[in-house]
Amino acid sequence: MRRLSAATAPRLAQIVADLGGELHGDGAVCIQAIAALEHAGVGDIAFLANPKLRAQLATTQASALIVRADCLALAQERGAAVIVTPDPYLYFARLTRWWAARTRKPAAVGVHPTAVVGERVQIHPSASIGPYAVIGDDVVIGEGAILGAQVCVGDMAEIGAFTRFAPGVRFLEGCRIGARGLLESGAIIGGDGFGFAPHQGTWEKIEQLGAVWIGDDVEIGANTCVDRGALDDTFIDDGVKLDNQIQIAHNVHIGKHTAMAGCVGVAGSAKIGAHCTFGGAAMILGHLEIADHVHISSASVVMRSLLKPGVYTGAFPIDENSNWEKNAATLRQLHTLRNRVRALEKQQNPTS
Amino acid sequence: MRRLSAATAPRLAQIVADLGGELHGDGAVCIQAIAALEHAGVGDIAFLANPKLRAQLATTQASALIVRADCLALAQERGAAVIVTPDPYLYFARLTRWWAARTRKPAAVGVHPTAVVGERVQIHPSASIGPYAVIGDDVVIGEGAILGAQVCVGDMAEIGAFTRFAPGVRFLEGCRIGARGLLESGAIIGGDGFGFAPHQGTWEKIEQLGAVWIGDDVEIGANTCVDRGALDDTFIDDGVKLDNQIQIAHNVHIGKHTAMAGCVGVAGSAKIGAHCTFGGAAMILGHLEIADHVHISSASVVMRSLLKPGVYTGAFPIDENSNWEKNAATLRQLHTLRNRVRALEKQQNPTS
Amino acid sequence: MRRLSAATAPRLAQIVADLGGELHGDGAVCIQAIAALEHAGVGDIAFLANPKLRAQLATTQASALIVRADCLALAQERGAAVIVTPDPYLYFARLTRWWAARTRKPAAVGVHPTAVVGERVQIHPSASIGPYAVIGDDVVIGEGAILGAQVCVGDMAEIGAFTRFAPGVRFLEGCRIGARGLLESGAIIGGDGFGFAPHQGTWEKIEQLGAVWIGDDVEIGANTCVDRGALDDTFIDDGVKLDNQIQIAHNVHIGKHTAMAGCVGVAGSAKIGAHCTFGGAAMILGHLEIADHVHISSASVVMRSLLKPGVYTGAFPIDENSNWEKNAATLRQLHTLRNRVRALEKQQNPTS
Repeated sequence: MRRLSAATAPRLAQIVADLGGELHGDGAVCIQAIAALEHAGVGDIAFLANPKLRAQLATTQASALIVRADCLALAQERGAAVIVTPDPYLYFARLTRWWAARTRKPAAVGVHPTAVVGERVQIHPSASIGPYAVIGDDVVIGEGAILGAQVCVGDMAEIGAFTRFAPGVRFLEGCRIGARGLLESGAIIGGDGFGFAPHQGTWEKIEQLGAVWIGDDVEIGANTCVDRGALDDTFIDDGVKLDNQIQIAHNVHIGKHTAMAGCVGVAGSAKIGAHCTFGGAAMILGHLEIADHVHISSASVVMRSLLKPGVYTGAFPIDENSNWEKNAATLRQLHTLRNRVRALEKQQNPTS
Repeated sequence: MRRLSAATAPRLAQIVADLGGELHGDGAVCIQAIAALEHAGVGDIAFLANPKLRAQLATTQASALIVRADCLALAQERGAAVIVTPDPYLYFARLTRWWAARTRKPAAVGVHPTAVVGERVQIHPSASIGPYAVIGDDVVIGEGAILGAQVCVGDMAEIGAFTRFAPGVRFLEGCRIGARGLLESGAIIGGDGFGFAPHQGTWEKIEQLGAVWIGDDVEIGANTCVDRGALDDTFIDDGVKLDNQIQIAHNVHIGKHTAMAGCVGVAGSAKIGAHCTFGGAAMILGHLEIADHVHISSASVVMRSLLKPGVYTGAFPIDENSNWEKNAATLRQLHTLRNRVRALEKQQNPTS
Repeated sequence: MRRLSAATAPRLAQIVADLGGELHGDGAVCIQAIAALEHAGVGDIAFLANPKLRAQLATTQASALIVRADCLALAQERGAAVIVTPDPYLYFARLTRWWAARTRKPAAVGVHPTAVVGERVQIHPSASIGPYAVIGDDVVIGEGAILGAQVCVGDMAEIGAFTRFAPGVRFLEGCRIGARGLLESGAIIGGDGFGFAPHQGTWEKIEQLGAVWIGDDVEIGANTCVDRGALDDTFIDDGVKLDNQIQIAHNVHIGKHTAMAGCVGVAGSAKIGAHCTFGGAAMILGHLEIADHVHISSASVVMRSLLKPGVYTGAFPIDENSNWEKNAATLRQLHTLRNRVRALEKQQNPTS
């Protein structure tokens, strides 16, 4: 991150005044940057969230530290000013937002003169529409919403208050997103679902007449796609976080506060619960159900409904290629191997 | 989908007049929406394609039903008007298209004044070019073609009649698509293939001098990429359907009416037959051949040519994480386990 | 590729004069196209890199051939003119670049009148900025750089000399790329990393305050994403080549000349060495380290650090679905099977 000059840097006491926490030491110290504990130097603020990394406190050069109460003494030994808080990682998250709000250039309020805006559009006067944006007819854009350069919004779409679209987002006809959302560049909301009826060896298109409904506080990553529903809407509930390069097919339902890492794919009509997590490149087949509080490991393929909370995994363990070749060859005969074991058991214990 | 008011809704008899089928019951009933059988209410038309779901007929509130002849009696018991047809799913597909044609706003014919159009471009007067589109030199755009907002078309590209590009499609230099195609937002046709010659530990670029050739009736999903060929063209034959987030590398050949679900990847120079299907996230390695009528399950990796029609699968079965850990550990020793079984067999049957 | 007419085609001697190699035969022959050896005809130049394909020399119709010294006699038997070089594939790579430089239309120098350019921007007079590009404030664009149509460059970004962005690239705030880079359409550099602090069942955003640092001679494929770092920058060193649809998460470090095929995913803070290769759809989990000269096979999942050079693989072998079903069922009991083998061993050899 860019370092602030000492002249423009905030003082620690200002951070504590805004974000809370218990200040120990010199509140007048200037904070020029946020840094990772192992790299932090003079003028930096750093945090310790994981007690296992407590040893890093012994050598840090940070001017200020965010720690739990049990690390206060250790942190003070370094001569740093200290903020004590029960959840340093959460404090760090809030500090990054505080920092961004102070240092990022605010978006220009109003509609850029090059934007093409349709008819009967309601744009809140505090909203910002960037250059070369294209807004369809009958669109509603809420208070403080920020639509970046080259965004495209389809007819009848609705965008909630303080929602932000990075440059190049496509948010197509009839789709709806609530408040405080964030769509990264290249995200495409409302492309056609993949639906065809087979007919004499060819595929006849099923027009996708539904849309996409997205709740409040949803984040959708770069180049991620959420398809419109065939008849009903695809549904992304409040607080869902989707990373980059994700594919959400038509009529999927994702419950509140579920998070998916990059490259995940979800096939049509899958119904995913709340508070789930999906590791990168997990794949979920269609027309199945996943309960609340299910956690899927990276690169695992969900082929059946998972109705019990828990952690599920299914990835081939990586190995040196020569070992893999031998094991993979045996794997292709695994059923036979089991039968051979059964035969041995029968032979050894003929009466069992 | 958006419901039509009773005033604007079509009558059932009109649907039958246009799409065929055998009408039983009141053709004057107003059809305000198409709905799934289990959700359908008064004013809705629904279909029953899967005879296993026949029980849903008993409780549906739909005003009209599309069924096979063997379900006519059951459908009529509900008091609904009925269309009898040998393939209700196909009828449904056609009904969605009929519906979309009646209810979607037609694209504005002509070239939007903000579009930048190159030299010697032939645009059919019935075609539609959206705002901020950029069209290169020597491009040909056919009758009734629709290019959405912010589309980019490279020099010498050709776009067939009635082909549609959603907003933000990039269709690059020298590429060609036939009639009645559909490219979803963010699709990129004609990016460089990934080709390099290794040289003293670095990579020297091989310029990709081919293009992409796409036949008629092809659909390509959102954020899907089809790379241009190194020397010859990458080739997508008639009727191919590609879902979102797919990667087609240079010089791949995909045969007629093959369909691929989201997140599939196909490496360079793979030759894929006609009438194949690929489940989501299937991966196909390069320089291999897949016969016609091969079906690859989701998340399966094709590492060798498959010259026999059939269904092929290769994905690790998902399990509770604790089970997976035990099984994965054993899998890494599978070859050894086989040897142990062999040793037991030898010991038990020393003469065999 | 497009064939040149005999009138505009270069002569072989011209190629040799520019690219070197030992000319045997008629340097006056016109070269109208580069072709694969098996398809080459009169007027074409082809190469033989793989000695195993030497038999193709016996039947080629190519007018000119690029071969190693040990194939000279065989090549001359066909009556073709011959370029002898120790590395025909490298020669071919250079020939494609020579060809592209001669035949591709050069980009228009200067800033297209429709481009929106911010304040305090330094654009080298030899650079080219395409229609509807949007360039933020305080951007630096080097000599000979080419930014295609509809590109978006964020504030304070830096783009090195002769670097090219295809149409629709998004290169966001504060990111930096060196000289001679190439970004394909839809590539997104500097989207937010995926970082949240859990809080009472919801996710609190960690603003991503770092950027992306990209060295010289880097190629990034279509629709590939490289996220900005949380605090420090995501780092892509010189000579790295990334194919399409790749996801590089925040704070990843990729060493010099490493290459990744399409659909690869790399999770946050992974540290990847130099001169590595990754097959398509390989997945690398976060916070791990991969040494220099590691080669990961397609569709393999790296779940732990790999500190030793070598080839690593972990993909489920594909099989006919019926076989897979039996083997997969057994795999879910593999640990039990091992215990059964152990029991048999114990029973058979009670004292061991």
